[in-house]
Amino acid sequence: MTDPSSLPPAATWGQEILDRLELLASQSEGGPGVTRRLATPEHRAAHDLLAGWMAEAGMSVSLDAAANTVGRYEASEPGAPALMMGSHQDTVRQGGRYDGIMGVVIPLACVKVLHDAGERLPFALEVVAFSDEEGLRFGTGFFGSAAIIGQPRIEDLERLDEEGVSLAQALRDFGLDPEDLPGAARHPEELHGFVEVHIEQGPVLEAEGLPVGIVTDITHGANMNVTLTGVAGHAGTVPMNRRQDALAGAAEGIQAVEARCRASDRLVGTVGKLTVEPGASNVIPGGCGFSIDLRSPDADLLKQAVGDLEARLSEIAATRELGLEIERRYKLPGCPCSPWLMDQLEAAVVAEGIAPRRLFSGAGHDAMALRQIADIGMLFVRCTGGISHNPAEAITSEDAGVAARVLLRFLRSFDPALRGAAS
Amino acid sequence: MTDPSSLPPAATWGQEILDRLELLASQSEGGPGVTRRLATPEHRAAHDLLAGWMAEAGMSVSLDAAANTVGRYEASEPGAPALMMGSHQDTVRQGGRYDGIMGVVIPLACVKVLHDAGERLPFALEVVAFSDEEGLRFGTGFFGSAAIIGQPRIEDLERLDEEGVSLAQALRDFGLDPEDLPGAARHPEELHGFVEVHIEQGPVLEAEGLPVGIVTDITHGANMNVTLTGVAGHAGTVPMNRRQDALAGAAEGIQAVEARCRASDRLVGTVGKLTVEPGASNVIPGGCGFSIDLRSPDADLLKQAVGDLEARLSEIAATRELGLEIERRYKLPGCPCSPWLMDQLEAAVVAEGIAPRRLFSGAGHDAMALRQIADIGMLFVRCTGGISHNPAEAITSEDAGVAARVLLRFLRSFDPALRGAAS
Repeated sequence: MTDPSSLPPAATWGQEILDRLELLASQSEGGPGVTRRLATPEHRAAHDLLAGWMAEAGMSVSLDAAANTVGRYEASEPGAPALMMGSHQDTVRQGGRYDGIMGVVIPLACVKVLHDAGERLPFALEVVAFSDEEGLRFGTGFFGSAAIIGQPRIEDLERLDEEGVSLAQALRDFGLDPEDLPGAARHPEELHGFVEVHIEQGPVLEAEGLPVGIVTDITHGANMNVTLTGVAGHAGTVPMNRRQDALAGAAEGIQAVEARCRASDRLVGTVGKLTVEPGASNVIPGGCGFSIDLRSPDADLLKQAVGDLEARLSEIAATRELGLEIERRYKLPGCPCSPWLMDQLEAAVVAEGIAPRRLFSGAGHDAMALRQIADIGMLFVRCTGGISHNPAEAITSEDAGVAARVLLRFLRSFDPALRGAAS
Repeated sequence: MTDPSSLPPAATWGQEILDRLELLASQSEGGPGVTRRLATPEHRAAHDLLAGWMAEAGMSVSLDAAANTVGRYEASEPGAPALMMGSHQDTVRQGGRYDGIMGVVIPLACVKVLHDAGERLPFALEVVAFSDEEGLRFGTGFFGSAAIIGQPRIEDLERLDEEGVSLAQALRDFGLDPEDLPGAARHPEELHGFVEVHIEQGPVLEAEGLPVGIVTDITHGANMNVTLTGVAGHAGTVPMNRRQDALAGAAEGIQAVEARCRASDRLVGTVGKLTVEPGASNVIPGGCGFSIDLRSPDADLLKQAVGDLEARLSEIAATRELGLEIERRYKLPGCPCSPWLMDQLEAAVVAEGIAPRRLFSGAGHDAMALRQIADIGMLFVRCTGGISHNPAEAITSEDAGVAARVLLRFLRSFDPALRGAAS
């Protein structure tokens, strides 16, 4: 059963996977790239494609009350606990072809190989296309996986899309009953674990010449809004040593964020948004607001970095006689992947002849939600230039095939009994 | 005639001056502060007030073809060359009560004292309220003084205001004929010099506890638009050492501008405008554009600073692998004040019992234009907090009175024969 000769060759298999992803990408609203929102005709079309491929792979198919597409490939013993795989079907506005949906198509390709060879495993396989992770239509996010972990977002049902349609109504229009949401819940005893395949969305694998990597953690995040208040003045008449220039203070703050985060390879920090008041070339900035986005797989390190930067900003403001306000906007709790799943993914990577690279995920994923009812593992796939959330998102057919081969090796060797074993 | 006892006391005289400025400030469009644009009903109302005060001070009054209000107080010998004084009547949007117009009201107050005492000087005195220096209505600037120096802005006549009225039409509606613009020209042989009284628009005099100061130069200015192009990316997934963050590069550039300008007290530099692309808190900035405004009374120093900063920006861009574009937007030629006029102003300051402080002007003034047909001098008056171009602009009645006393002392002692004498 685990004869490696039954693994399809990476290039051709990968091309089949890309062909499917291309077909899915065409189920999109207009404009460049892919735009597919929760409970829209495009979502329905994607569901129909996925359901067909699931059936073809010998899976039973259902659409749960949260509009998640769920396929199940029974174990040799029907009704056995499952290893769940999957990712999201929805996209950001004008996103790419791979973010999310690739993590549905690759597992389906693996199940199809098993089915075609008549292989049953001692555990069931489930593949889920989560309905809504990006949350574009209703400003939600993780709506699909929240229902599956038994924490349905009832409070989001009243949210309206741009056309004024509520999420509850959109689900009803999709043929579902929001009252049934609690029924979408899955329970820990049904699952051996959850594995998500996803494009890296970063440049690490590309830089190191590796097609895949094993995710160690999903980062914790902290977000702050900083406002510096100085004194606007005439750009020509106020001597340098008498200025209270809010933008000059912000520039020092931006440098501080960069320097602090460069000091650790487990920390990233970004100032992505900045506004200047009054914003005229001949007026010394009297005000400047900017965002700081910090992420780390290490919650303590993140907390320390937030504290260090707040202290540094206070120093800068004091030295420059600027007013300082820091608003902590939100904190996203991250989570670690499970060592026993990492180890088994790593064994599959090594079996494929690839150096095993462990790396953390700076982006959030459905696995973060699933973590609450199951151990999780993630496999990252190299993407061109680390670009995501963009029509230019790209992977190679070779890499898609390699990722599928790694996942299939993993599935064939997967041992639920190793749960809890030390890494 | 030069008996100092004939100088009005600073506080009461200053209050008279502030009262006149208050009355002029009420000739304003709606909104906070003063908004008075070229060839509007508010301009007409200001002209009428000034013309009345000129007549009361024994001056002949005219409105030239560029809408400048010109008053002339004859010399003991009618038709003799004049010492010209003045500043602009127009304002920025929601500007203050003193910028410009104070340089008309103080000279008029001096002429009134001479007239009331029956004093004639061996030279004529002219006081001009330039119609348009800020250029708010038509995006012009120096329209009034350009006509007086014989360089009328014919090409600006087709410019339209927000309501679609051309400058030519606005002049006609004001009762003037744009064809007559060349006739507004004055000639070097008619003038002994030009003296402008203006609020400092900076904090130097206030910081040093001085009511007035003598301007040495009007700064040269250079303005650049800098564009840095990096690679936008996910704030969570791109490691620090793989980023091409345009805003982080800009922050280094802003610090460089500040550091370069702090290295000399004859140089100021401001980054007043900055935009970030795409400008989302969770996206690494792929682009950043910002302005650099540099000013110095020393043209060589300015040129050197521009070169140094361009080199530094190139270094920053190269190190960070960012694209760099620098657009030199405009260069404002500054000019020195004439030493013989500075010396005579300084003598008047000293006679008033004030430590003579020489300082340069970082802002442009009508005197820059007049410099092309006459030697120039400028007297700065302390303003609260260095604030200008703002409804909060403020001076004290005491300082207004002191400035008037200094100017009157200067006029009574003025010796045109000292022209060309070494400082």
